[in-house]
Amino acid sequence: MVRVHNLFLSSDGYGAGEGQSLERPFGHANPVELGAWAFGAASWPNRTDGAGTRGLEDYLVRDFHRNVGAEIMGRNKFSPCRGPWEDHPEWEGWWGEDTPFHTPVFVMTHYERPALTLTDTTFHFVSGTPEQVLERALEAADGKDVRLGGGPETIRQFLDAGLVDTLHAAVSPIELGGGSRLWTSPEELDDRYHHDVVPRPDGVVHHLFWRR
Amino acid sequence: MVRVHNLFLSSDGYGAGEGQSLERPFGHANPVELGAWAFGAASWPNRTDGAGTRGLEDYLVRDFHRNVGAEIMGRNKFSPCRGPWEDHPEWEGWWGEDTPFHTPVFVMTHYERPALTLTDTTFHFVSGTPEQVLERALEAADGKDVRLGGGPETIRQFLDAGLVDTLHAAVSPIELGGGSRLWTSPEELDDRYHHDVVPRPDGVVHHLFWRR
Repeated sequence: MVRVHNLFLSSDGYGAGEGQSLERPFGHANPVELGAWAFGAASWPNRTDGAGTRGLEDYLVRDFHRNVGAEIMGRNKFSPCRGPWEDHPEWEGWWGEDTPFHTPVFVMTHYERPALTLTDTTFHFVSGTPEQVLERALEAADGKDVRLGGGPETIRQFLDAGLVDTLHAAVSPIELGGGSRLWTSPEELDDRYHHDVVPRPDGVVHHLFWRR
Repeated sequence: MVRVHNLFLSSDGYGAGEGQSLERPFGHANPVELGAWAFGAASWPNRTDGAGTRGLEDYLVRDFHRNVGAEIMGRNKFSPCRGPWEDHPEWEGWWGEDTPFHTPVFVMTHYERPALTLTDTTFHFVSGTPEQVLERALEAADGKDVRLGGGPETIRQFLDAGLVDTLHAAVSPIELGGGSRLWTSPEELDDRYHHDVVPRPDGVVHHLFWRR
């Protein structure tokens, strides 16, 4: 299966703002606001304090790793650089040595570069269509699932190519007005997907989709 | 951790009706109604058709097996027999050779009998306090969690002894009026547990508890 998990979105469908930079990986969007529902959960991958909530959000968060054998991400999730990597030739991602992935990661880019290994995660820099990249990721996943890590425009390419099996997006009550967009409205997918809507007391709405 | 998952309850707090028998393991309660929310999910343990829904209920259902190393159940979950096993000396549980547990199972009873192995599940018949039985189950779980499988009165004993870390109960809009009861109202646990309430379109309400 090809799965999307814990995608942070604004009420107008953006997962990142405009003006991404080294200092602002989400551009003008504030990731602390967009992801507030997840960061408090006991299973959030970057937690180190052993605390956190174990309600519904924790179920959603901990599914991130279940049976995942590889991740595909867009280049803008990996890096604020554009073009042939000349401005930050040594860039190794936002995550430091101890990444949250623990599987091969395929970074989609028109500008190839050698693979990069950090602890138990190897980043492969690949060009090609969504179908071609997915074929490589499925091979690396070795029978497990492939997670599509984003950003929203990368996920949209895979949705439009009919390659996504399940998608979980968490829509926060925040408007962004511009940036990297998944949809104008979640109902856009209803012709091809079952759609479960789970509103929460904090105003976040979880949208769960699976193929019809 | 000691965890309760997917506990089917009526709106008045019963998980099984009165008059359990070989023909009616849930007594006068109808398990098809009490568990309807779960049986449609793709990950329901007894599904064999490869179909099913992948919305919120599937997250809840598939957490049943995550990191579980042993189960504890009350004798009435294992069998309709009462007393020293004389009426059904060959009874091997409701599940047939291919049980949904796949770990050691500790059946609490005052009447000991030899352990029973079915495929990858060994049932141990043990007497003792909840603390003593839990100690044996934790040892068998070998670092993984212990699932408390029910019924409701068995779970209540462990709750009252302060031994439960997380609990998920799904309350269906059905009144039973009698049987094996977990609570008069879910709010009974709020002094000791955080409590997340997730109402669903079909009238089922999921209650998720974790220790304060």
